[in-house]
Amino acid sequence: MSELYHVIESQQFTLELLDELYEMADELDPERSYKFLNDKTFFLLFYEPSTRTRVSFQMAMHKLGGSSFMTENAFKFSSVAKGESLEDTIRYYCGMFDLIVLRHPDNNSSQDAVSVATKPIINGGSGSHQHPTQALLDLYTIRCEIGRQDNLDVVMIGDPKYSRTIRSLCYLLSKYPGNHITFLSPDSLKMGQDIKEHLTKHQISFDEFSFLNHEVLSKADVIYVTRIQTDRVPEDADRQHTIDNLLADAEPFILKPEHLDWFKKDSIIMHPMPIQKGQNRELQIDPETDERCVWIEQANDYGLRARMALLLKILNG
Amino acid sequence: MSELYHVIESQQFTLELLDELYEMADELDPERSYKFLNDKTFFLLFYEPSTRTRVSFQMAMHKLGGSSFMTENAFKFSSVAKGESLEDTIRYYCGMFDLIVLRHPDNNSSQDAVSVATKPIINGGSGSHQHPTQALLDLYTIRCEIGRQDNLDVVMIGDPKYSRTIRSLCYLLSKYPGNHITFLSPDSLKMGQDIKEHLTKHQISFDEFSFLNHEVLSKADVIYVTRIQTDRVPEDADRQHTIDNLLADAEPFILKPEHLDWFKKDSIIMHPMPIQKGQNRELQIDPETDERCVWIEQANDYGLRARMALLLKILNG
Amino acid sequence: MSELYHVIESQQFTLELLDELYEMADELDPERSYKFLNDKTFFLLFYEPSTRTRVSFQMAMHKLGGSSFMTENAFKFSSVAKGESLEDTIRYYCGMFDLIVLRHPDNNSSQDAVSVATKPIINGGSGSHQHPTQALLDLYTIRCEIGRQDNLDVVMIGDPKYSRTIRSLCYLLSKYPGNHITFLSPDSLKMGQDIKEHLTKHQISFDEFSFLNHEVLSKADVIYVTRIQTDRVPEDADRQHTIDNLLADAEPFILKPEHLDWFKKDSIIMHPMPIQKGQNRELQIDPETDERCVWIEQANDYGLRARMALLLKILNG
Repeated sequence: MSELYHVIESQQFTLELLDELYEMADELDPERSYKFLNDKTFFLLFYEPSTRTRVSFQMAMHKLGGSSFMTENAFKFSSVAKGESLEDTIRYYCGMFDLIVLRHPDNNSSQDAVSVATKPIINGGSGSHQHPTQALLDLYTIRCEIGRQDNLDVVMIGDPKYSRTIRSLCYLLSKYPGNHITFLSPDSLKMGQDIKEHLTKHQISFDEFSFLNHEVLSKADVIYVTRIQTDRVPEDADRQHTIDNLLADAEPFILKPEHLDWFKKDSIIMHPMPIQKGQNRELQIDPETDERCVWIEQANDYGLRARMALLLKILNG
Repeated sequence: MSELYHVIESQQFTLELLDELYEMADELDPERSYKFLNDKTFFLLFYEPSTRTRVSFQMAMHKLGGSSFMTENAFKFSSVAKGESLEDTIRYYCGMFDLIVLRHPDNNSSQDAVSVATKPIINGGSGSHQHPTQALLDLYTIRCEIGRQDNLDVVMIGDPKYSRTIRSLCYLLSKYPGNHITFLSPDSLKMGQDIKEHLTKHQISFDEFSFLNHEVLSKADVIYVTRIQTDRVPEDADRQHTIDNLLADAEPFILKPEHLDWFKKDSIIMHPMPIQKGQNRELQIDPETDERCVWIEQANDYGLRARMALLLKILNG
Repeated sequence: MSELYHVIESQQFTLELLDELYEMADELDPERSYKFLNDKTFFLLFYEPSTRTRVSFQMAMHKLGGSSFMTENAFKFSSVAKGESLEDTIRYYCGMFDLIVLRHPDNNSSQDAVSVATKPIINGGSGSHQHPTQALLDLYTIRCEIGRQDNLDVVMIGDPKYSRTIRSLCYLLSKYPGNHITFLSPDSLKMGQDIKEHLTKHQISFDEFSFLNHEVLSKADVIYVTRIQTDRVPEDADRQHTIDNLLADAEPFILKPEHLDWFKKDSIIMHPMPIQKGQNRELQIDPETDERCVWIEQANDYGLRARMALLLKILNG
């Protein structure tokens, strides 16, 4: 059996560990209540908004019998508001809880936390850098829906540049042979050089196109759509202008009901959510209308199982 | 037995259902801890501040053995802050929880939620439109304190125009024969035409006066006081001026200790709370000074029993 | 056995009660889960940010078997946002919970709450006035680490003027014979006259110096460092200027690794936390580097035990 303590970057998961976690996830039933973690507690230390990650972790802990404590906005409601360092906050919470889930806008926040941590830290989203538990559930969704993690044709649409979920998923996909990744995005939001180099180094072929490529999409096993991360645009004088330009650039990449005909019968459409509302909505298909739309299950059942397995592995060995 | 799933508007409750809920509320003892809902969970999705509704639902769930999860400010701390639609949020939470309580500033929010919901939605306050569970506990308070729900003389003071609790209670009172409602408010805050038409249609007589009518108050079984909803005044250039005018208009409707002599011995004074603090305080009587003041019990014991009954009915049939 | 109901000011604790609480704290094991308060609930009513106090109370209640409910920001998310008075809020919560922990910026907030409370109120921090449960755990830390509460040489560094934890601890230390207190602070942050008079009245000798006095520090049993409470500086035109001046004044009082040589072998360094981050950090020693650094244990284990004892005493007699 593999060891697991901190969860910081998706590339840290070994094939053996992924298999073990996914087999645990298969076994766990979110409809049941377990007592595995009955005396365990964890703290959800969130410096950024969250709908799914926080609730999914809370529910996973609840289903396993453990107890969760949290702050919804550590910048405002914790001593950070009085100028406390992340390290001091982590030092304290490590003395109180068995595990900490951290979401923070700084790319290096999880590493900073680990430097003083005496309990496991799970990265629940670090800036535009990584979101390893999202990648874990994304790949679990693919495994359950497609039936394999290798030899996949994966198309990622929208914002490869700033989407931490795309970055983290690329690291996982690069562990399996035969996967091919295509990025469809405006030029202004192309995937960063570091991920491209990582893919090349791991012999994962990839393409990129600056239009909604029909041919590519018609061969895809997985169509992975992401939101344009306008909230990552710096707060400067040009902010609204930059955002308007990004959204205009991204408009040709909006996925609409008419595109459903392009996709293979046994493909799946994923989205890490949230989806932008209104006219800039990047995924304009109702999930109830086509069974290839799996993003609600991705967030719900698959997300819950994957996080239950992760917590159980870390806290129960 | 009646069926109950979504709770959106108070007019949806049938007489049979109200009787059933109130008999359950009579039986339930908030001092005890039950296990009826041991494996059930719900989510409190609040987009507006709440003291009583959120806590009362949480405690009701706790007393019945279930578990509650929540956000205190969905606008700031959930993916709404990243531009997610209410429908997408509801889609997700329905996959995770057995029931959702929604408080939202839009009048149509609960209907919008229901349109995609796969689990029961309870309206915990929708704009200035409805607050059906408040009406449920208000009528339960009357039933327990006065001993009946019909042939009541009910006086509603303050802000019939914007008070969603007055609106929701009017719908309930109109279901029983012989009730008479009097609205005492400044001309600027008169009850809307839709409720008046509803009362007329259901043969419920009503009056309105723009002063604190001594004769009316001396005959009242129930004196129901409400806050001037200055937070509903639009955020425009005239806002403070509009608020000042409203408060000046409402000043003659402030209830003071000297008015206690006007009221019948067996009447009750209710208030959905919160009460405005300071010089504009619309109810300047200390609840400890007169046993006809029931607004603390209304919020506490009666509120808890009514919500326990409601959750039990929906989740346990 | 002593009686304990409201906890408002640290001077209210008698020697007998302190002994009883500390003996309970010694007995309680935070690693275990108890069932003493299985049917008890409390509400954490916080109007100011908190990292440790809120979480420590929550965990203490959890370990004893009770349930906690809370708001992270009562100004924004409760009916205070609609203009409700603290008294009305307290009236309501007293009907719902067995105990209320209140943190509020007003110095008199706890007294105001007690005036209408029908359940025990614990002051979780009142403006710059008092923080009695912090003093309780501070003295417990000293008792456990030094082995006594009397004949102590205690040096308090930083901001005696605005630090409610220093004030509350002075009240406790003045109950035991032979204690000597030295305040080291800039002239702008000297201890208030009321505490000095209290110490004199209770025959507790004290000194004050406006520099980091080597001789004083080399004799100290307890070195108690505090943050400059810049958040207490009024929001006026001069605010930033006032803060800059305070921080400049306080710069010579920063404790650095080279000062460790000054301190006695069996002394302890305490801090109520949070510690300011960045260049103005008042305590620049890493707690992992010297076993005399006890501020993490102070907040964690000692804090948890002291608060568990307090809750148990109030709710279980």
